[in-house]
Amino acid sequence: MTHPAYDELAATWKRLHHFGHLQALASWDRSALMPVNGNAARANAMAEMDGLLHGIRTDPVLAGNLDRAERELLDDMQRANVREIRRDWNSANALPAELVQAQSLAGARCEHAWRTQRPANDWAGFLANFREVLSLARRQARYLAYRSGLDPYDALMDNYEPGMTARTLDILFGDLERWLPGLVRRVRAKQAAESTMVPVGPYSRAAQYAIGVETMKLLGFDFSAGRLDESAHPFCGGVPEDTRLTTRYREDDFVGSLWGVMHETGHGRYEQNLPRDWLGQPVAWARSAGIHESQSLSFEMQIGLNRSFIGLLAPRMAAHFGAQPAFEAGNLHRWLTRVQPSYIRVEADELTYPLHVILRYRIERDLIEGRAEAEDIPALWDAAMASMLDIDTHGNFNNGCMQDVHWGSGLFGYFPSYTLGAMYAAQWFAAIRRETPDLDTRMAAGDLAPAFNWLHENIWRQGSRWTTSELVTRATGEPLNAVHYRRHLEARYLGS
Amino acid sequence: MTHPAYDELAATWKRLHHFGHLQALASWDRSALMPVNGNAARANAMAEMDGLLHGIRTDPVLAGNLDRAERELLDDMQRANVREIRRDWNSANALPAELVQAQSLAGARCEHAWRTQRPANDWAGFLANFREVLSLARRQARYLAYRSGLDPYDALMDNYEPGMTARTLDILFGDLERWLPGLVRRVRAKQAAESTMVPVGPYSRAAQYAIGVETMKLLGFDFSAGRLDESAHPFCGGVPEDTRLTTRYREDDFVGSLWGVMHETGHGRYEQNLPRDWLGQPVAWARSAGIHESQSLSFEMQIGLNRSFIGLLAPRMAAHFGAQPAFEAGNLHRWLTRVQPSYIRVEADELTYPLHVILRYRIERDLIEGRAEAEDIPALWDAAMASMLDIDTHGNFNNGCMQDVHWGSGLFGYFPSYTLGAMYAAQWFAAIRRETPDLDTRMAAGDLAPAFNWLHENIWRQGSRWTTSELVTRATGEPLNAVHYRRHLEARYLGS
Repeated sequence: MTHPAYDELAATWKRLHHFGHLQALASWDRSALMPVNGNAARANAMAEMDGLLHGIRTDPVLAGNLDRAERELLDDMQRANVREIRRDWNSANALPAELVQAQSLAGARCEHAWRTQRPANDWAGFLANFREVLSLARRQARYLAYRSGLDPYDALMDNYEPGMTARTLDILFGDLERWLPGLVRRVRAKQAAESTMVPVGPYSRAAQYAIGVETMKLLGFDFSAGRLDESAHPFCGGVPEDTRLTTRYREDDFVGSLWGVMHETGHGRYEQNLPRDWLGQPVAWARSAGIHESQSLSFEMQIGLNRSFIGLLAPRMAAHFGAQPAFEAGNLHRWLTRVQPSYIRVEADELTYPLHVILRYRIERDLIEGRAEAEDIPALWDAAMASMLDIDTHGNFNNGCMQDVHWGSGLFGYFPSYTLGAMYAAQWFAAIRRETPDLDTRMAAGDLAPAFNWLHENIWRQGSRWTTSELVTRATGEPLNAVHYRRHLEARYLGS
Repeated sequence: MTHPAYDELAATWKRLHHFGHLQALASWDRSALMPVNGNAARANAMAEMDGLLHGIRTDPVLAGNLDRAERELLDDMQRANVREIRRDWNSANALPAELVQAQSLAGARCEHAWRTQRPANDWAGFLANFREVLSLARRQARYLAYRSGLDPYDALMDNYEPGMTARTLDILFGDLERWLPGLVRRVRAKQAAESTMVPVGPYSRAAQYAIGVETMKLLGFDFSAGRLDESAHPFCGGVPEDTRLTTRYREDDFVGSLWGVMHETGHGRYEQNLPRDWLGQPVAWARSAGIHESQSLSFEMQIGLNRSFIGLLAPRMAAHFGAQPAFEAGNLHRWLTRVQPSYIRVEADELTYPLHVILRYRIERDLIEGRAEAEDIPALWDAAMASMLDIDTHGNFNNGCMQDVHWGSGLFGYFPSYTLGAMYAAQWFAAIRRETPDLDTRMAAGDLAPAFNWLHENIWRQGSRWTTSELVTRATGEPLNAVHYRRHLEARYLGS
């Protein structure tokens, strides 16, 4: 079988992989290590590379090669690779250059101003910039919808969670909305009767780093192909062959850094275990933002807040931070699973987090589809926070609708990925428990292999071989649904 | 004045600067941070970038643009820039691709085998690979000689020290050879009568890092545009806008890391202070390997072993490592300036180091010019070590002619730069002392500004505006000569 058009495409994406390696490293370094005055030169270098990458991905010769490759005789992986190359090509070629540039400028301006407007609670100032950002995002959505045949909001979401639609989300999130606020109230009532000791700091940076590294090893992170460093905003960067995680430290709190490390380790192991033979080709890329988040939440929440796993961590905490009564495993579990509705999504507990996401999904979809305007956001926000979380955000823009960077920088359609990730993760662990009924016992004994082996086999090494829904069904025998998520939350928060 | 050809050239080299930034960062990271299994992907990414950079520098359109730019009406800096662009273009276009590739392969093979052959003292094994490396280097030298009109060895040296010739080197090094071996003997006789306390370790890595950073600050390194990290082989990497130094630590010795840091700080300050308005253009590049080395040796030797400066360091050592009698400033100075002929160039003291270099210069020139063959090296080496340093290296290839990586990897014509650097540095400081006769008094008071200001004005901010010999004469009023170097060494090692 010869397939010259396919071979040319594969060579082009391999080249993109090589150049992308340098760009990923430069980006990681900028956040983790770069001295402050190195920024201008770095920005110029990365812009030059962006231009090169964009030029390669929009080379007119690709369109013909794609058409030809789709008619060549290919094996399954090659066909899947062409499908994903087509996706990547679409995303690079879908929008007119003037719109991309206008969005980049408007988003950068709005985000830059937001950094000072947010602490100043200056909604009016934000609104002045944000109207332009929203107007451009609507144009973007219409363009993408026109090319893809999807609805405008679905077309935006397709960039992050291919195949997901608002129709499906309405079912999934509608399900959650029916029982989750009630569950939160029941859990809070139960927890009000519990007494919990709160660990007392300070916790030195060196000790937090040491327990972080030890926990990453326990979670199977491959330090011969990755690192842990520090940055203002934790992330998983680098490349699959050299995965760079970051965290941040506060001396009065170790939970933020340690569970942050677990979260990024989930992202990191996914990257480190994507199909090695295909690295560089889109078929070996991570499947979607939601599937990626399902890995971080498998590690941070499914494993990280598991009672047996906390039992493994408790003596390590005592070893690194010094013993104290609050480090008793049962107490730690109670403390770490306390539920408390709060203003800020990124600080929310496992149980209330999805409500923050649903709220944003409803609003951003209305914004894109024209049922709401920028100036309607505060009222919509206040109403949803009150009904779902019993929290009053009236006039509190700083801790309300101005808390996230997403919308201001032009990012719409991403928020659902967070909660889709949590739901996927619950569904993975339901499947893992069916295969390994004594999962908790084995975990308590330090044996995490059943979970890792399942994730490796069913998710990591599949890369983008299947569509997202195929991946889910092949892995768990059923499409994504909220049943396992509900069972997981009820078991953890209402169980004994 | 319009100069379209010049403008195109300048735009091309700006582009090279941007891409080179990413390549420099990737290279630094590979040595300083990269996990071991990240190497294959990094090598592929950097090879892709090498190919891109080479393609830009050998684009056929450049030849015509260079010819045209040389006839355009340009100001002085632009003219100097075209001269340096021509140099860079020559070096990218001088050799046939098959020769470059053959050299790269043969050098990599020989160097890789050398890593195990050296500890095994396996000269015969090394020789088998090295013959090919030498043969290719001779072809390279003939090519470069043909294009430049220089003698073959001069043509190789021109890559590192443009304008330097063996004729000039014979005068400079011939001068040294007449008095340096005798000076070494006199100094050794004098030092035999001195008693010196040797500081006692261990010295923690953290303390060595801390005094390293403190000393870099004392030496004016700009940490807002640079870093200090760790690597197996210390170097100064990164880019002028973000200069990355490395050192290595041994817990039983702090001198290697601390004076290594000073050495790299000299390289680093040169890079950090190249002409900012011209960054990215060849006229803003460092002038030559020898001038670069003159900066590292200005910091490591001229300042670093200066009695007044050691007086500044002594209390810092006590603070970081704990007080001990050997940290008395006078004792430290005696200890740090001990002269002891030894096998290994990179461990040699200031006084015997040039003899190691002269030995290599004589041999490599004979090799390139065909007066010696690869198998003659050990005999030539043994004879020179005996006559110049009273050291017997017979049969000791490991600590003799196999100690350096240069020749095995195909690098000929570089060695002279080390000692040219030391001679330049002595000439700089003679000029600085003429301008600031109380230099030592001011240094003792912690005021290093006179030296830094002179170097900044006369060397750093000149970049490649002048040829090397013009730079030296403009800075010091005379061409490079050995007079100041001899005075410096005699004053330091035979003075009171």
